[in-house]
Amino acid sequence: MSKAQKFSIEATRESDFPRWYKETVVKSEILDYHDINGCYVLRPNGFFIWSMIKQYFTEKIESMGVKEAYFPMLVSKAALEKEKEHLDDFAPEVAWITECGGKPLENPVAIRPTSETIMYPYYSKWIQSYRDLPLKLNQWCNVLRWETTQTMPFVRGREFLWQEGHTAHLTRKEADKEVFEVLDLYADVYRELLAVPVVKGTKSKKETFAGADFTTTVEVFIPSTGKGIQAATSHSLGTNFSNMFNVTVEDPSAPGSFMPVFQNSWGLSTRSIGVAILVHSDNRGVVLPPKVASVQVVIVPCGLSKNTSDEEKQNILAEAERIEKTLKSHGIRAQADLALNVTPGHKFNHWEVRGVPLRIEIGPKDMKNNQACFAWRMDKTKKSVSLVNIAESVKEELESIHETMYQNAKLLQDSCILKGSTMDDLNTALRSGKMCTMVWCGAVECEEKIKKITEERDKNNVVTATGAKSLCIPFTENKPTGACSVCTNEATCIGLFGRSY
Amino acid sequence: MSKAQKFSIEATRESDFPRWYKETVVKSEILDYHDINGCYVLRPNGFFIWSMIKQYFTEKIESMGVKEAYFPMLVSKAALEKEKEHLDDFAPEVAWITECGGKPLENPVAIRPTSETIMYPYYSKWIQSYRDLPLKLNQWCNVLRWETTQTMPFVRGREFLWQEGHTAHLTRKEADKEVFEVLDLYADVYRELLAVPVVKGTKSKKETFAGADFTTTVEVFIPSTGKGIQAATSHSLGTNFSNMFNVTVEDPSAPGSFMPVFQNSWGLSTRSIGVAILVHSDNRGVVLPPKVASVQVVIVPCGLSKNTSDEEKQNILAEAERIEKTLKSHGIRAQADLALNVTPGHKFNHWEVRGVPLRIEIGPKDMKNNQACFAWRMDKTKKSVSLVNIAESVKEELESIHETMYQNAKLLQDSCILKGSTMDDLNTALRSGKMCTMVWCGAVECEEKIKKITEERDKNNVVTATGAKSLCIPFTENKPTGACSVCTNEATCIGLFGRSY
Repeated sequence: MSKAQKFSIEATRESDFPRWYKETVVKSEILDYHDINGCYVLRPNGFFIWSMIKQYFTEKIESMGVKEAYFPMLVSKAALEKEKEHLDDFAPEVAWITECGGKPLENPVAIRPTSETIMYPYYSKWIQSYRDLPLKLNQWCNVLRWETTQTMPFVRGREFLWQEGHTAHLTRKEADKEVFEVLDLYADVYRELLAVPVVKGTKSKKETFAGADFTTTVEVFIPSTGKGIQAATSHSLGTNFSNMFNVTVEDPSAPGSFMPVFQNSWGLSTRSIGVAILVHSDNRGVVLPPKVASVQVVIVPCGLSKNTSDEEKQNILAEAERIEKTLKSHGIRAQADLALNVTPGHKFNHWEVRGVPLRIEIGPKDMKNNQACFAWRMDKTKKSVSLVNIAESVKEELESIHETMYQNAKLLQDSCILKGSTMDDLNTALRSGKMCTMVWCGAVECEEKIKKITEERDKNNVVTATGAKSLCIPFTENKPTGACSVCTNEATCIGLFGRSY
Repeated sequence: MSKAQKFSIEATRESDFPRWYKETVVKSEILDYHDINGCYVLRPNGFFIWSMIKQYFTEKIESMGVKEAYFPMLVSKAALEKEKEHLDDFAPEVAWITECGGKPLENPVAIRPTSETIMYPYYSKWIQSYRDLPLKLNQWCNVLRWETTQTMPFVRGREFLWQEGHTAHLTRKEADKEVFEVLDLYADVYRELLAVPVVKGTKSKKETFAGADFTTTVEVFIPSTGKGIQAATSHSLGTNFSNMFNVTVEDPSAPGSFMPVFQNSWGLSTRSIGVAILVHSDNRGVVLPPKVASVQVVIVPCGLSKNTSDEEKQNILAEAERIEKTLKSHGIRAQADLALNVTPGHKFNHWEVRGVPLRIEIGPKDMKNNQACFAWRMDKTKKSVSLVNIAESVKEELESIHETMYQNAKLLQDSCILKGSTMDDLNTALRSGKMCTMVWCGAVECEEKIKKITEERDKNNVVTATGAKSLCIPFTENKPTGACSVCTNEATCIGLFGRSY
């Protein structure tokens, strides 16, 4: 393997998507694989993205009155089993500690797959009166879900990082308002930070969170694979958990009688990093949205040859350093790559693999004209820019890159959501790597049927593509008319269907 | 139990320290007890302290070139067993996952008690050349140590939060420099944020971190109990782990030959919150250092009676709100307590239990004089202050409170560290709830002997006070002369001895 090969991405999105993805996240130094399946190391390049998301989201929810807390990661069997429907859904993935320091535990304890059953006994204790409402807490933590299906960095891991918000309200109206507010925040994280367009909607009955009255979701289309991915969810839990965990208050409108509170939970995980990478990256490596790139701009001295005088060389290097300093002083994450033992081409490749959004090339000719050359990571656009007010120019350029990345992704996503009305339409969409909306009765049976019909198998009867499912019932879709696309019952909604992660 | 009793601290530091501490952390809504021993909920009042520490420390280590990352919490048996001495020390506390989703795991996995053995296989992979050095990573995460001794909130828990920094260097000199730099940062966290004085020093051979060449530590004296507590540690790992995990580079001064890198690890945990509470709090509840208090100032309308006109009442409430707004606009975490169904005395108690550093009382008389009354949480000092430039006055007051808290703690700590030269001196110190320095040979045997001699038992031979140990060898102490205070060998150091957590 040549040195260039070692650092470049060899597989392509089109030819071998899984290998392309693995190479992309590993060679960009965003992530590394652990020796335990489904566990990954988030390296500084990757963790930086998460830090930016944390910072952005924390500020937003703080202004909604949400406070940060931390609950234990261990849950007793009794607490975990309290909400039956919820448990049924999580039980197959729960990890149990049964042994400590070489001795068996009398009462094995589980590790949180999510924290409803850990938190709500406290909500019951802390909420003594409607004056204690609303209670709005959020935690940033790790969770563990022992996936037995194929794992995939960021997308399906056993341990992952997330935030989980858990709130309690006096009225359903107030609770529901928050469900949608938080969903909007999630859409903002994708739109504003990750330059990713989402489809907002409600989950079907089958896909609703176990124990929720309804689940809202932001869904994203992943190019090349044509699959949808659930990017974050905000649940209305109604009184399902508050009834089980006895989170009640005296009804302010009926003194003497007690009522369960209305609860929500909502979560966004490190999957968001994977979504951004899957949406934007190309065959040369990661393409990072500027707002979350740990290095936003790399400055590379160019045009130096054997004929370049030492003085000129020093001037160029000094200028590159000066630009780095200027940009940093304006809050731009800039880095000058001044190594002399490496060619500019090698540097270009190095930083492209890592997804640095903007490259500034500066050579003797540029310096004479008091200018530099901007090169976009995303599409190889190049242009000359004056060194006067370079920080302003870079800021505008990064904004423009962000907007272009978003618009490109949006155009592609929109073009890959077909409007259908029959199962044939869905099949056509799936075969061309797209998704499809269809009128639908919303029944679990119809969704199962769709999945079965759209499943693909090879001649040995091995599943080559799992069947489609409803990603969501988009908010933007109108009320349907006519019969369900699957059964003959009246349609109640328009669903977005596709294969998914 | 009366309502006042329910919210006030009943036990005293002097009469029943364990109960006093439990009441103090729980009634201040800083923490709650989980149904699994040694696990606790960090409520917003408590988590806020941790957030402040995180923010402060992150900024400092970023300027040292440390990057943030996240490594998996699961570790395979093989990796855990790689460094023998290290394993021996942690094995008794390691928790094992042996079952997932109801099925036994073929290869049980452990949960990190610390991350050396998780991270260093990656260091071996990522560090290919001395050009990859230094590598400086830090993570904020949870760890699990299955304590079988008495647990205590913040001080000794099974799950706790911490930061762990892990760095690799080309030279021992560079590595050692960092060990002490980080220790200084830890001292700064205590001094600047928590108003807690520390004793910096080196751990004795017996107390050195398993696998380290040497361990530096900041130790704190806890009043009432007279015990010392290890507040944070910074370890020089030398080449112990790099040899085991094969973290090597080609020696730049001897091409062709490979050398192990020099490693450090350093950690500060949520124990720091407990240390601050234990040092400062009193029989009325928590006393929070202003810089980490989620509410720094509470504004309480006072002097309202049946004779107060409605207009006057409204004026006072409006003024209290106005003060809150003014202070907030100056970045002060202020809260006006405007409830009308609660007496000022009840409010005073409520906010005192929670440790709010400064209370502003404002009544009709104050308003006439365009002033308010400041009351310190720590010592009930009261004084009248003009409402003109109140934000400036509050800032100065908070600074002054911080400094006074630190100085008080420092005076007390200094007065409780006696200078001794014999075992009798140590015994005298311990009996009066103090600590003691002694010349010492540094041997493990002498330390074990000290522990045994100073252990106290009741008439039924039950241990009532565990023996003293060396807390550290303070940097400030000179080289000793003469013989060890325990054996007859030559003394090599002056140790600080005391009972400890």
